[in-house]
Amino acid sequence: MKGLHIIKVGGSVLSDKKSIATLLDDFVALKGAKILVHGGGNVVTETALKLGYTTEMIEGRRITSDAMMEVVSMVCGGLLNKNVVGCLQARSCNAIGLCGADGKSILSKKRLSAPIDYGRVGDVIAINEDFIVNLLGKGCVPVFSPITMDGAGKLLNTNADTIAAQLAIALTPYFRVHLTFCIDKPGVLSDPLDNMSVVPFLNRDTYQKMLAQKIISQGMLPKLEQSFKALERYVHQVCIGGCNGLKSTQKNTKIIL
Amino acid sequence: MKGLHIIKVGGSVLSDKKSIATLLDDFVALKGAKILVHGGGNVVTETALKLGYTTEMIEGRRITSDAMMEVVSMVCGGLLNKNVVGCLQARSCNAIGLCGADGKSILSKKRLSAPIDYGRVGDVIAINEDFIVNLLGKGCVPVFSPITMDGAGKLLNTNADTIAAQLAIALTPYFRVHLTFCIDKPGVLSDPLDNMSVVPFLNRDTYQKMLAQKIISQGMLPKLEQSFKALERYVHQVCIGGCNGLKSTQKNTKIIL
Repeated sequence: MKGLHIIKVGGSVLSDKKSIATLLDDFVALKGAKILVHGGGNVVTETALKLGYTTEMIEGRRITSDAMMEVVSMVCGGLLNKNVVGCLQARSCNAIGLCGADGKSILSKKRLSAPIDYGRVGDVIAINEDFIVNLLGKGCVPVFSPITMDGAGKLLNTNADTIAAQLAIALTPYFRVHLTFCIDKPGVLSDPLDNMSVVPFLNRDTYQKMLAQKIISQGMLPKLEQSFKALERYVHQVCIGGCNGLKSTQKNTKIIL
Repeated sequence: MKGLHIIKVGGSVLSDKKSIATLLDDFVALKGAKILVHGGGNVVTETALKLGYTTEMIEGRRITSDAMMEVVSMVCGGLLNKNVVGCLQARSCNAIGLCGADGKSILSKKRLSAPIDYGRVGDVIAINEDFIVNLLGKGCVPVFSPITMDGAGKLLNTNADTIAAQLAIALTPYFRVHLTFCIDKPGVLSDPLDNMSVVPFLNRDTYQKMLAQKIISQGMLPKLEQSFKALERYVHQVCIGGCNGLKSTQKNTKIIL
């Protein structure tokens, strides 16, 4: 079975010229089929502010009003996505930028408005594998923005970690899938203040212990939950590492069951 | 030979909810393979203004600075493009939103900086027909934003009329191509103030006469130049019409050699 690398990068990595260059150099060097999934993060918040929209957060999560969905479409679907595609093409990597509406690639369902109304936020319910496998077969490298579509063609804001994990799971019948989350730390740290304290392997037990000790940051929770879910659903390997984390020589955190 | 409809719509049509609904209903009703190409127009100017960038024009044409190129990526590559894709998907039309960098679909060359430096503006030099023919063969409907890429992966702002005409020309070996420019008038008018004065057929002679009489507006010139070029390069039919112009019963202007 052929290998497939699925790499997820956050918006903060994308908006830093040096870190994106390092990451894309390493991404291009990965052999075989590959997919990049990116978030939006700070760039969405900053652009919304410039356009006069305030970002409303509940429990650390963005509320996506219709106006905010327009900003997400602009920043994630346009600015960041097309910039990454151009940077990859400049490296002779035949990227194609997509959101979940393109080719019906990622269908989602609007999250229920109770107990918290997150607005235009969707949870992935189906991946159009045929479409993606066809693109990969043609040597294309899909670059996904964190936008999905409901059954009625409505664009919804979707967590990029979840998109990466759901793509990984959906493509296991076709590929031996390696899923990597690139973050602004070199991996999961046993001491949040010490970048040298990368935990080399993390299983559910260690995860629960670290959670109880409050060592793991809020932002890491969905990544780890998605990681375990992916491994349970036959994704071959899941790693969490820094921008240099795509190099095989680099230390990172391997998630294990 | 199978038919292919290539429809170009301006940014002003896209930003009006009623006119876009009419247009997309008619677009979806067109039988067989089809491609939509859209501009950005006023939405780019308005968003740039909100973000604090002033739009510089020389001889009625936008100067595309690096900052303005970011706005074009946001508005055309993201906001408008993904909105159209969602609206088409809502009509069970399997759209895929692309810029010229995606799948190396449209390569361009930066326009020379003399006599006028337009900045990040590119002129189309090659179309990746294989990529587009493959998508059409899979039943996808490409939706192109007015962004292309130079050989080094740099994104460039490109006139959407030219993109539509160049796509039409490039695809003539594969399809009997019908090219339609949708404008905010019902066609080319013999009296600019009378929407009932649609010229049913326009050839080069009539065009030159109307030009001499200054009946034809500035914005129509590239459309007409591209129309004649397309017909000379074996595009089957070229029309200029209003938002209702996709209906076969509707009067519009047929360009003839």
